[in-house]
Amino acid sequence: MRTLELNHLKIEAVRKELTQLLKTGDAIAIKQLVADLHPMDAARVTALLRESERLYLFQLLNSDVAADIVERLSDNDQVDVVSALQPEVASDIIGQMDSDDAADVLSELPQDKTDAILAVMPKNRAVQTRRLIAYAEDTAGGMMATEFVALKETLTVGQALITLREKYSRVGDERAAYVYTCGAKGMLTGVMQLRNLVLRPPQEKLKNLKIDNVIYLDVNMSKHEVARIFRRHRYLALPVVDNARRLVGVITSDDVVDLIQEITTEEMMKLQGVSTDETRSLPVLKMARRRVSWLSINIFLNIIAASVIAFYTDTLKAVIALAVFLPIISDMSGVSGMQAVAVSIRDLALERTTPKEIWSVLGKEVRIGLLNGFILGAEIGIVAYLWKGLPYLGLVAAVSLWLNTIISVCLGGSLPLLLKRYKLDPAIASGPLLTTITDLMGFFIVLSLATYWLSYLK
Amino acid sequence: MRTLELNHLKIEAVRKELTQLLKTGDAIAIKQLVADLHPMDAARVTALLRESERLYLFQLLNSDVAADIVERLSDNDQVDVVSALQPEVASDIIGQMDSDDAADVLSELPQDKTDAILAVMPKNRAVQTRRLIAYAEDTAGGMMATEFVALKETLTVGQALITLREKYSRVGDERAAYVYTCGAKGMLTGVMQLRNLVLRPPQEKLKNLKIDNVIYLDVNMSKHEVARIFRRHRYLALPVVDNARRLVGVITSDDVVDLIQEITTEEMMKLQGVSTDETRSLPVLKMARRRVSWLSINIFLNIIAASVIAFYTDTLKAVIALAVFLPIISDMSGVSGMQAVAVSIRDLALERTTPKEIWSVLGKEVRIGLLNGFILGAEIGIVAYLWKGLPYLGLVAAVSLWLNTIISVCLGGSLPLLLKRYKLDPAIASGPLLTTITDLMGFFIVLSLATYWLSYLK
Repeated sequence: MRTLELNHLKIEAVRKELTQLLKTGDAIAIKQLVADLHPMDAARVTALLRESERLYLFQLLNSDVAADIVERLSDNDQVDVVSALQPEVASDIIGQMDSDDAADVLSELPQDKTDAILAVMPKNRAVQTRRLIAYAEDTAGGMMATEFVALKETLTVGQALITLREKYSRVGDERAAYVYTCGAKGMLTGVMQLRNLVLRPPQEKLKNLKIDNVIYLDVNMSKHEVARIFRRHRYLALPVVDNARRLVGVITSDDVVDLIQEITTEEMMKLQGVSTDETRSLPVLKMARRRVSWLSINIFLNIIAASVIAFYTDTLKAVIALAVFLPIISDMSGVSGMQAVAVSIRDLALERTTPKEIWSVLGKEVRIGLLNGFILGAEIGIVAYLWKGLPYLGLVAAVSLWLNTIISVCLGGSLPLLLKRYKLDPAIASGPLLTTITDLMGFFIVLSLATYWLSYLK
Repeated sequence: MRTLELNHLKIEAVRKELTQLLKTGDAIAIKQLVADLHPMDAARVTALLRESERLYLFQLLNSDVAADIVERLSDNDQVDVVSALQPEVASDIIGQMDSDDAADVLSELPQDKTDAILAVMPKNRAVQTRRLIAYAEDTAGGMMATEFVALKETLTVGQALITLREKYSRVGDERAAYVYTCGAKGMLTGVMQLRNLVLRPPQEKLKNLKIDNVIYLDVNMSKHEVARIFRRHRYLALPVVDNARRLVGVITSDDVVDLIQEITTEEMMKLQGVSTDETRSLPVLKMARRRVSWLSINIFLNIIAASVIAFYTDTLKAVIALAVFLPIISDMSGVSGMQAVAVSIRDLALERTTPKEIWSVLGKEVRIGLLNGFILGAEIGIVAYLWKGLPYLGLVAAVSLWLNTIISVCLGGSLPLLLKRYKLDPAIASGPLLTTITDLMGFFIVLSLATYWLSYLK
């Protein structure tokens, strides 16, 4: 029994030992060393090895041990390792993986590598894997595994136990917590707990034990929809059916953990105009290009907003102190508005709100804007007054920030709902639109108030 | 067998029917109607009922049916329903829930309600529930359930099956996929699949069947750490042990789905200065107060940044067109910097990067800044030149935005890592610090360049 996971120093020490052993080629010692590691730690060590060392290691290891390690490598390392192995070795290792993981790895490889590996795989498995690879990556079909226990509902408990022993000894433990029952032509008819097979009398029919009220997923359903259903119903696994309601796969909640993370971080990234899959391991040129397209739209909108200032150069020349307050007021109302945007985007993503609730959102935000705008306006107004000793300068700053905060939070709260309603992506478009409008309104309010009260400001 | 879930219209129709039945008090028809619904749909209907209708409904329903519904209500509705029920009724319902859900509900109730419900609960269950409530909410102890199957490792498979039938018929299906083996004093010694009990000969000892290499969680471990481990190891359930390595609970991955979502959306919200638990169902005053504290820090920093402008009023007066470019340059470099912040915050949250990698992050970002700053600078420079026909105005705008974009992305990429290193919260502090520094630098660069080239700008 070992503790949770090895620390970095230990991992490094194990790596050194393993590198040494790989040099001497002592197969027994190498296998023993790997066997003593948790597969997760073994994967961490493997990730640190040089390419040639890794290849040698995977040729030495039994395919089931190797599969446990490959499953836990990062996507990139998986592709590197598997495409470097001979097709026969790769096929053995992939054959030991869960069907969904196997399909994921193979769909990342270059087509010729995939074909070479599938060609040497046992025919049944190859056909099944090809079918899984064919499903679009972002659908339930692309996520599901084909390891599940399905029994005809006409069987008795006793017959079911025999079938289980004969046919299903290789099904992964997670997926075997549930037993699905099928009727004519493999149609899903119900679900029961594996445990019931142990606890019930052997002559009872599955038909009478099964729960009819089974929730199932459609094979063409989007990943987002799958995530939504798992979040609502707290199941560990759900069956996937095809158009004819035939059971074709199972999705387990460990896959959904990754998915939920992907979906929620996606919103945050898009709000800043960064593509979800941007990581600093991408080439600089690629990262720069992806970011700059969104920035170029922003700068265009920014120029439109700032051009308002050009219409008031006389006022600005007369009261140059206003130039200090223009950026403060546009910045601050932008920030307030983005708070409202963030709440709406999150609530939309988690389906806590719908575009129909726009009036209730506006009702809340207008009151928040009245309150917070008043506080922030008072703060900036006092600073402005103290700086120049001009009460009207304070008044212009205070009233402008107050008004613009109200506009900004109302817009920030409602814009994502409106965009969603018209099928636009709220996370990408809300930020630029919000700041453009609040900048424009901010400049306009400050400068037109100042023009109106110009005689008091000199 | 029913389809996935009812649509809004059907839910509304069912609610009407149920309200009607509740008026007539036809208990049998009411129970039948609820039994025909999936518990999730029943919860959706229940959420729409008036308080008095709900209470009446829960008094009528069998406690197991009621528990299935209460488990699926939102946290607020759970508290409303349970605290309105008589303690005896509430205790029956909670007694049917999983231990972790029961503890969650009870820990949300007012103390006197919790005590009243625990007082009428069977003693064993009450003691166990009190123990679960005592764990801090954000630890493994606060997440875990106590429904698990633990067998002495000295038992044979045959004895294990008998014990299973006698003692564990009530354990939830998910948690029963694994059987944990214990040694002296309840210490966790291994894990095995439930299925193995069915497939192995009855005289074999558990000791020889179990997997020693079991990963376990510590009861005091933080929720974040739990999420991290589940994300790495793809298990459906992990055992939780106390200081003496005694098995005290189990956490299943369906709980982690909620947790991961909480953690990842938290980062996004904090980046905008909104508290994670802000929803528009909170009172306006509370929402406003929570947002305004962060805004007040922002306005203070904003004033500091903008005060740079005050030192250059002569230049600004001489070239009033600069007032148009000040907000554009500070805004645009802020936006570019926030892209880098978002990537770093996400990578830190997902542990793709560590504070040690600051130099490699800077190396990437400086090159992105050089590239994107050049493009954005050129865009703004051309606009400035075309507007006034002054080449040097274009040059000031272009060079300023170029330089400030480089500063901003370097700062945006590295600031979260630095803050994390000094144990500050990067998601809360990065935004305000970044925009203050880039505003300040932006104003300074524009105005000092303009002062330097003043003779060419008139």
